Amino acid sequence: MLDHLIYNAVLVTVNADFEIIDNGYIGIEDGRISCIGKGKDDADLPDARNRTDAKGGIVMPGLVNTHTHLPMTLFRGLADDLPLMTWLNDHIFPAEAAHINPESVYWSSLLACAEMILSGTTTCCDGYFHEDCVAEAVNAAGLRAVLGQGVIDFPAPGVPDPAKNIRTAQAFLQEWKEKSPLITPSIFCHSPYTCTEETLNAAKSAAGDNLFQIHAAETVQEREKILANHGMTPVAYLEKAGGLDRQTLLVHGVWIDAEEDDILVRCGAAISHNPASNMKLSSGVSPVPRFQKRGIKVGLGTDGPASSNTLDLFRAMDLAAKLQKVHLLDPTAADAESIIRIATIEGAEAIGLGQLTGSLEPGKQADIILLDMEKPHLQPLYSPASHIVYAARGADVTHVMVAGRFLLRDRILLTLEPDEIFRKMEKLADSVKRH
Amino acid sequence: MLDHLIYNAVLVTVNADFEIIDNGYIGIEDGRISCIGKGKDDADLPDARNRTDAKGGIVMPGLVNTHTHLPMTLFRGLADDLPLMTWLNDHIFPAEAAHINPESVYWSSLLACAEMILSGTTTCCDGYFHEDCVAEAVNAAGLRAVLGQGVIDFPAPGVPDPAKNIRTAQAFLQEWKEKSPLITPSIFCHSPYTCTEETLNAAKSAAGDNLFQIHAAETVQEREKILANHGMTPVAYLEKAGGLDRQTLLVHGVWIDAEEDDILVRCGAAISHNPASNMKLSSGVSPVPRFQKRGIKVGLGTDGPASSNTLDLFRAMDLAAKLQKVHLLDPTAADAESIIRIATIEGAEAIGLGQLTGSLEPGKQADIILLDMEKPHLQPLYSPASHIVYAARGADVTHVMVAGRFLLRDRILLTLEPDEIFRKMEKLADSVKRH
Repeated sequence: MLDHLIYNAVLVTVNADFEIIDNGYIGIEDGRISCIGKGKDDADLPDARNRTDAKGGIVMPGLVNTHTHLPMTLFRGLADDLPLMTWLNDHIFPAEAAHINPESVYWSSLLACAEMILSGTTTCCDGYFHEDCVAEAVNAAGLRAVLGQGVIDFPAPGVPDPAKNIRTAQAFLQEWKEKSPLITPSIFCHSPYTCTEETLNAAKSAAGDNLFQIHAAETVQEREKILANHGMTPVAYLEKAGGLDRQTLLVHGVWIDAEEDDILVRCGAAISHNPASNMKLSSGVSPVPRFQKRGIKVGLGTDGPASSNTLDLFRAMDLAAKLQKVHLLDPTAADAESIIRIATIEGAEAIGLGQLTGSLEPGKQADIILLDMEKPHLQPLYSPASHIVYAARGADVTHVMVAGRFLLRDRILLTLEPDEIFRKMEKLADSVKRH
Repeated sequence: MLDHLIYNAVLVTVNADFEIIDNGYIGIEDGRISCIGKGKDDADLPDARNRTDAKGGIVMPGLVNTHTHLPMTLFRGLADDLPLMTWLNDHIFPAEAAHINPESVYWSSLLACAEMILSGTTTCCDGYFHEDCVAEAVNAAGLRAVLGQGVIDFPAPGVPDPAKNIRTAQAFLQEWKEKSPLITPSIFCHSPYTCTEETLNAAKSAAGDNLFQIHAAETVQEREKILANHGMTPVAYLEKAGGLDRQTLLVHGVWIDAEEDDILVRCGAAISHNPASNMKLSSGVSPVPRFQKRGIKVGLGTDGPASSNTLDLFRAMDLAAKLQKVHLLDPTAADAESIIRIATIEGAEAIGLGQLTGSLEPGKQADIILLDMEKPHLQPLYSPASHIVYAARGADVTHVMVAGRFLLRDRILLTLEPDEIFRKMEKLADSVKRH
């Protein structure tokens, strides 16, 4: 007998054929998807100890956010509409230096988890400092995550001695390797312009078979700096430094020429595309359709809430589609199905979890979300894929399940106490305001 | 004694100084704002027959959508990701010809009204055919609107005889001139490429002192067509045809050169900017910051739900800001305050209602919305303007008041029955699906 059955659903499987099943059901056993089928009457439905009526709503894989800095919820809306260097040097870096510590990282990450659950994200790939505190928060929330301890060569918040970075990152990998089935440890090497080649090498080597996350080719200024200092582009430089292979997640990938695609194809590195951040910080437009034509894996991300302001992947899907269409003046440059793929299965593949999550298929982990379609902005319903990308919002998600466990039911958070988080965040924010 | 008092609010007034009042209150009498002040304790608050506790949330002017085709909710998500002409000729025009009639226009507009209220819009400027049915729906919903009966020279849905267009539009102006204090009639002349110069002239002349809405300079193809047929750009052609003055709302205004700004300044025409539609249809990027520097009035719009998929102006605000930033590679190209202005007071001014609505100031109509900030994605709160543009969603709106009357309270619609609307829409959509 099944542990759980979700029925009366429009099942958007995101399997290889992007199959959509009307009157669909999905059975869950031992945290995994055990069956998927079509049937409306009780006689057609398998037995289950617990049942959830999707009431004709969309049931789809939980969304996968391939790039976050969860603790930066603490700085959401602190400074906006500024040139990048003013924003970083006059606002974000000083705020981080003064206010980032294990306690603030833990609570700010819990707030981020509440936000992710309430907007349908079941997996994230994060990079920050004090990542052990991020891991404790994500684990408490019950979300799935790849979490990278930060490595950087200038004194980062709470990391006064850069020489200790690699050792801290190694210790984090060791500690979280077996600690939770939901947490996969990783290394987050900040960027080719904040780390020396020696540090890049040491970080990549420490990462081993684990995911190696690195910001790269984000702005034209970065590209010019690397060209000036190393005589090659950021991507070519990363390849030379040994930082590019199948375990590499190259975050942003905006300023990459078509000729450089060959390097990415050769090395097998994946791209995390962050349209909200790239637009808001005026970084530019990542050539996602070109990457996809070359078979380069792309996942969707929001970036941290200090730059993109929310962790809502529904917003990111809408932006990702519209940005390519207007930039290339081609409405076919992105379509709803391809956008849903980068927000689910292809994102999962980009961060190394493609076997576990990202689609509704028997054998996969039961990472599932339900959307209530009985809302004026989601009526009528001709195309589920269109509504997911162009009309739905995080707030339309009613239920969220990770590994067969409900984290959200009827929009009630089951693993977190928002009031307690808000009270803690208010105190932390008061201290930020005083500076 | 006041009819109503809203207190314990972060009041975002959108007055000339963009004043924001913490612990603010707003008093309402006879449908108008009668006082605004600061005070937390009962002793500081004026007496009122009814009170609403904003619970520390944001209270701001209701949003103003300067361009909609409300009945097109019927075609939401019917066809996406297609080249413009395929989308129009193979999907939208045939669907309109088959399914647009007084009944479908009425119910589809009611659905649109429910969606607008639930996302904080209190005023819209619409253009379609059977606009009398749109007016009945908007009036029943209790929203404020400028509504334009359509004029076009090829047989439009439900308008088999183009020659009757002007007469129908005149009759609409006449009928709705005094019928409801919330409805301002107008003429919606489709575009310079679907109307002859004679029709443009007749429509503008019929409009008289009423708002004259016209799609113009939307796509590069339109610009090339008008250049080829008339030897001048769409804006220059409209000026020559007598279609541009202070009562003109030029919708889209994407393909306008800097030299043409002089024409807009001289004529005093306003622009309706529709970023969601311009992005999704790959039309291009309207030079909004340049217009604003020249003192050309700009209001924000969503366009119809067949192209932009939702009527959520919170989404439109976010898109409007991010689109300029990434297009101009300048994060200062748009800021949260300027974006809120085009979505409220400047939008109201663009459609001729600036004296009535668009800001919270004594004497103005009480068109007011409340946002619940006790949500993870809206915490912490440093800058109300930043959260309104970059983090809030329509779903965060809890209360909506138009002319002193609540249309939404605690997210319950008070003037509309969503279940009845959904049932009617399901039938209408079934018939669309069968074709």
